[in-house]
Amino acid sequence: QHGKLYHKLDEKAASDYITTIPILAEKLGGSPADWDIREVGDGNLNYVYIVVGPRGSFILKQALPYVRCVGESWPMTLERAYFEAKALRKEFEVAPEYVPEVYYFDHPMAAIAMRYLEPPHIILRKGLIDGIVYPRLAEHISDFMSKTLFYTSLLALDTHRHKEAAAQSYANMEMCRLTEQVIFTEPYMEAANNHWTSPQLDQDARAVREDIELKVEVAELKAKFCERTQALVHGDLHTGSVMVTETSTKVIDPEFSFYGPMAFDVGAFIANLFLAFFSQDGHSVTEGARDNYKKWILQTVSDVWSLFVAKFKAEWDKSWDHAGYAYLPAVYNTPAARTLSQMRFIEDLFVDMLGFAACKMIRRIVGIAHVEDMESIADAAKRAVCERKALSYVESLPSLDGPA
Amino acid sequence: QHGKLYHKLDEKAASDYITTIPILAEKLGGSPADWDIREVGDGNLNYVYIVVGPRGSFILKQALPYVRCVGESWPMTLERAYFEAKALRKEFEVAPEYVPEVYYFDHPMAAIAMRYLEPPHIILRKGLIDGIVYPRLAEHISDFMSKTLFYTSLLALDTHRHKEAAAQSYANMEMCRLTEQVIFTEPYMEAANNHWTSPQLDQDARAVREDIELKVEVAELKAKFCERTQALVHGDLHTGSVMVTETSTKVIDPEFSFYGPMAFDVGAFIANLFLAFFSQDGHSVTEGARDNYKKWILQTVSDVWSLFVAKFKAEWDKSWDHAGYAYLPAVYNTPAARTLSQMRFIEDLFVDMLGFAACKMIRRIVGIAHVEDMESIADAAKRAVCERKALSYVESLPSLDGPA
Ligand SMILES: Nc1ncnc2c1ncn2[C@@H]1O[C@H](COP(=O)(O)OP(=O)(O)O)[C@@H](O)[C@H]1O
Ligand SMILES: Nc1ncnc2c1ncn2[C@@H]1O[C@H](COP(=O)(O)OP(=O)(O)O)[C@@H](O)[C@H]1O
Ligand SMILES: [Mg+2]
Ligand SMILES: [Mg+2]
Ligand SMILES: [Mg+2]
Ligand SMILES: [Mg+2]
Ligand SMILES: [Mg+2]
Repeated sequence: QHGKLYHKLDEKAASDYITTIPILAEKLGGSPADWDIREVGDGNLNYVYIVVGPRGSFILKQALPYVRCVGESWPMTLERAYFEAKALRKEFEVAPEYVPEVYYFDHPMAAIAMRYLEPPHIILRKGLIDGIVYPRLAEHISDFMSKTLFYTSLLALDTHRHKEAAAQSYANMEMCRLTEQVIFTEPYMEAANNHWTSPQLDQDARAVREDIELKVEVAELKAKFCERTQALVHGDLHTGSVMVTETSTKVIDPEFSFYGPMAFDVGAFIANLFLAFFSQDGHSVTEGARDNYKKWILQTVSDVWSLFVAKFKAEWDKSWDHAGYAYLPAVYNTPAARTLSQMRFIEDLFVDMLGFAACKMIRRIVGIAHVEDMESIADAAKRAVCERKALSYVESLPSLDGPA
Repeated sequence: QHGKLYHKLDEKAASDYITTIPILAEKLGGSPADWDIREVGDGNLNYVYIVVGPRGSFILKQALPYVRCVGESWPMTLERAYFEAKALRKEFEVAPEYVPEVYYFDHPMAAIAMRYLEPPHIILRKGLIDGIVYPRLAEHISDFMSKTLFYTSLLALDTHRHKEAAAQSYANMEMCRLTEQVIFTEPYMEAANNHWTSPQLDQDARAVREDIELKVEVAELKAKFCERTQALVHGDLHTGSVMVTETSTKVIDPEFSFYGPMAFDVGAFIANLFLAFFSQDGHSVTEGARDNYKKWILQTVSDVWSLFVAKFKAEWDKSWDHAGYAYLPAVYNTPAARTLSQMRFIEDLFVDMLGFAACKMIRRIVGIAHVEDMESIADAAKRAVCERKALSYVESLPSLDGPA
């Protein structure tokens, strides 16, 4: 679908391109001379332009056929833009409050035009580093996750639609393979991509590579990642994929989306809250200055999970009588059967969620891609203390204790 | 792919059809007048012709666009023949000793020509009813299962090939939906299709429908069936899908094949051995006449599992260094890591295997399709005793005890 029809946009080329797409040009109003186009991509992979005209604005995001931060030596499929657009639309369908609307998708150009999340929206990760409280965050993100996961699963769909959706999502396999590599594989072996605060964490990184029990647990989580087509997951739901204000929460960047285990998204988000938590001592200018903020983060972790459970169950309770094929009403036909079904479902999700959260934390400390929460702590010794606390916490998670 | 190009074969039409397919006509030799064509399908779904000529022979199996034993009121996709042919070929590739070779597949006609498994091959279920010992059975079937399951999983494949194979198998979803319905749903609700030895088992059938703990376990197994794309499973591996002599074991009829949990096949086979076991008292002409045979069946159950484990591990051990993507050698790089990985993998498989076996046994006693092992016990009271013992055994399986 790409080939000759693809060309990489810069500011000028973007302007020319927009003139060829009437619905985009009209959204902006005026003429190209009136348009302000600025590249703002801070991600590792893609170009993102803010485009503002006299009448309106949008974001134009374009995929490159390679990893932006590495260069052409690491090729990467343009098809990810297709899966991103598709996921954004599906998410918008079931949880419109939390997703920028897609205005236009150009498959050959691997380009998505979507709503510009105007200031004061900022990337959540930056807000967490700056110690900003988001009072609605837990409520919003749990709402987003419960709706997107529930309504794309067999709890809401019949077998036919579920299998079809899962089969279609398979084509995003290059992105899945990348996740497998950087999350479930490389942190547990000697890999050129790996790095960590050295020499402080040399021993810790080695301990991860040599922890047999951990590696076997990770294999089981990887199998769930690779084999369990439970729901349409975002696939990259860290705090850098969420834009916020005090009253608004928007999820962007689902280019890794695929049919996978629900717990992968929930675990990703919680892991990144934990990383934010453990990084706070590195940002505290005076002893104890971030103590209240740390409490708020922990409360948010707890709220995200408990609100997710409550909201997920609420969707489920609404759906019993026109349910998907997982729990047919004629079989799960008593309050006791329904309560027990939900309890078991959530218990399993909890264990997997902790497991995925653990993988996500580990890889951000000893793997290829670290988080700004930690990286922005300039003093390596101080950073290492924060990172080690995060790693120790991971080891205490019950999902990593071996079989129950 | 079907439509106008499909027509249903009878003996005469089959003969005409074969004359149009040179490689089949040549295999038979002579001319149509010399060919012996006989319908032998004892299955519920399809027509099966034995075709014998002066030079050679084959089986011609054709799918109907409806369920044979019900009629046109229950339509069923012809596409199942495509998946059967594809699975037979894949199984033949990795375990040729145990699968009839496919000579020809005609997609529009939904017809497969395959090796005729000549007498004394009989359907295993019939041999078990007749009390015949098959000394090689456990060894052969465990070999078949270990190879077909291992070599189509991420233990042997890379992500790309595995996901592609799984995505392709999704199109057999009508067959999966049927399995969901008759195995994981109907036995647990009041359904017109259900029947049982009545009135003797009325209470037992009701107990199944009202056992909340059981139904919640079944939901978890159903989720694995629907969502876990672990390996290419046969999908219908009961003792009626195996043809045997004392020295030969051949698996036929994989029209339900899809990417699913390995444990589904192993559980299906073991369940049907258990049903054979519990039916023996109904076939015993004198008290105790089948005692030795019952011992042999139980020994076979045990051997099937332990040989499966041994053979599966042996394939795995051969593959560590050119392995699939599940357990990369650089991560699972010590004997201890490898041993623990295998142990956990097999433990999980064991629990799921028992769970699927339980579902399979239950559905054969209170669901739509029963087994000849039990049905051939003419005395209903006697049959009910056998069936109740099987049901009680199911309830004792550890996988149905709730969470570990
Ligand atoms: N809809 C949007 N509105 C405002 N800013 C956006 C929007 N989408 C992306 N951005 C900005 O661009 C950055 C990179 O976008 P992202 O989709 O995460 O790209 P990548 O896939 O390269 O990580 C975001 O961190 C954010 O600052
Ligand atoms: N390759 C074969 N060689 C000999 N007999 C066969 C062969 N395939 C099928 N049969 C006979 O036909 C019957 C039905 O075949 P099967 O493939 O199980 O059809 P169905 O899908 O309708 O159950 C088998 O029970 C067996 O008796
Ligand atoms: Mg991003
Ligand atoms: Mg991205
Ligand atoms: Mg059959
Ligand atoms: Mg069949
Ligand atoms: Mg359980």
